[in-house]
Amino acid sequence: MLSRLCLHTITTKPWPIETASDAYARAGVAGISVWRDALDGRSIPETGRRIREAGLTIVSYVRGGFFPATVATARARAIDENRRIIDEAAALGAPHVVLVCGATPGQSLDESRRQIRAGIEAVLPHARERGVKLAIEPLHPMYADTRSAIVTLSQANDLVEAVADDYLGVAVDVYHLWWDPALSVEIARCGDRILAFHVCDWRSPTRDLLNDRGLMGEGCIPIRAIRGQVEAAGFDGLIEVEIFSTEYWSMDQQVFLDRIVDAYTRHV
Amino acid sequence: MLSRLCLHTITTKPWPIETASDAYARAGVAGISVWRDALDGRSIPETGRRIREAGLTIVSYVRGGFFPATVATARARAIDENRRIIDEAAALGAPHVVLVCGATPGQSLDESRRQIRAGIEAVLPHARERGVKLAIEPLHPMYADTRSAIVTLSQANDLVEAVADDYLGVAVDVYHLWWDPALSVEIARCGDRILAFHVCDWRSPTRDLLNDRGLMGEGCIPIRAIRGQVEAAGFDGLIEVEIFSTEYWSMDQQVFLDRIVDAYTRHV
Repeated sequence: MLSRLCLHTITTKPWPIETASDAYARAGVAGISVWRDALDGRSIPETGRRIREAGLTIVSYVRGGFFPATVATARARAIDENRRIIDEAAALGAPHVVLVCGATPGQSLDESRRQIRAGIEAVLPHARERGVKLAIEPLHPMYADTRSAIVTLSQANDLVEAVADDYLGVAVDVYHLWWDPALSVEIARCGDRILAFHVCDWRSPTRDLLNDRGLMGEGCIPIRAIRGQVEAAGFDGLIEVEIFSTEYWSMDQQVFLDRIVDAYTRHV
Repeated sequence: MLSRLCLHTITTKPWPIETASDAYARAGVAGISVWRDALDGRSIPETGRRIREAGLTIVSYVRGGFFPATVATARARAIDENRRIIDEAAALGAPHVVLVCGATPGQSLDESRRQIRAGIEAVLPHARERGVKLAIEPLHPMYADTRSAIVTLSQANDLVEAVADDYLGVAVDVYHLWWDPALSVEIARCGDRILAFHVCDWRSPTRDLLNDRGLMGEGCIPIRAIRGQVEAAGFDGLIEVEIFSTEYWSMDQQVFLDRIVDAYTRHV
């Protein structure tokens, strides 16, 4: 039942990555997606080894991107930083980096989109050299101010097709995309370029723009229907639970992990 | 300078409508859009007369809609309620009602969209009889859970074209639509069906999903560019400032009104 379940380290943020990976493995979870901050102060290759020895598959390294900036030197710094992130993913043994592409309030979304494409094209040769793919994650339009000028799967597909590099794909997150009337058509258009599939739920009411994501089944997202579309498009990878929640981070993380496993079994 | 400026009563929510209309008129504001709750306990025709005597144009009556429901009797009640809202708009002397179309977490967005179309078609004959148009307002995707299954101008345009009734148009609100890469194309597609144009701004960070809208110029929305597109499509009506803000509602409303006039002059 859990052979395709993966958790993001941020989902159980209070736990150090060692505690998280041991607990995930004990619970029968198959994979882990590693957030960059979870590696702070650690040897990356050693942490990767430890995770694999615990029996977990490393699914995603999270996250690169944030390419747009009004100043050219800042854009160049972002490109350097993304090369470092790719190196870290390679050292960890992660097959791809998730890109939160970025946006900056001082310029138009169209200009940010051009800079995103330029940034991705600048780092792709390095990604190929390291054997690490890049997954564009379209974010919910409520993050278009500072986090991502790419807000629909249609835009991500357009960008992937324009760049035309087999090291570039997409990450489909139900939280960001569920509202889009074009979603099923765009998922079918993805074909084998879906590198990651993220689940959680949309609570009503949502009390915070960032940190009030729901556990699967607690909200209004038709998760199972979207999973069906993603799999019909050819995706057979692990399914990643990515929940940012002040409420859940404040509870006992082992109890929360048990609830995640239960919610995954019932609603994904 | 202010001959096209209109304020929504909810923008200065602490003020009773009599105080608001007098203050708007004194400030040189040309129009008022009336929220339903502002009429509580008042004679509607008399309030309309009072507003016109103060020298203000009544622009929009806000708001109808909320058609979807999982139970048929609830959908029938929503249709009755919308007929009453149309009657109120006619009694007030408002040329149109803004529709927040609705959504309900217990069913798919597609089903909600079908129910929205059915609801609109059910009330349109009554709207025509009363001489009151209906303006579909696509809402930001962050409101797709409970407020509106119509989340893009493209969907609103599709719906208006499918229904094909000259008493049905759209309301374009920069807050809900600014992120959409298809926005300029869809505004051009609107032609003369734009019945209302709403402005405010998107703050970074936005601290609340509902009540943290910014004053024009405080955020990242290219308001003037969107105004240009709306006018190029043929819109020459009043421009409505609709701000929900716990912060601004807590300040002196006369000082806030002066800031709105200043922000309108500089940024719209």
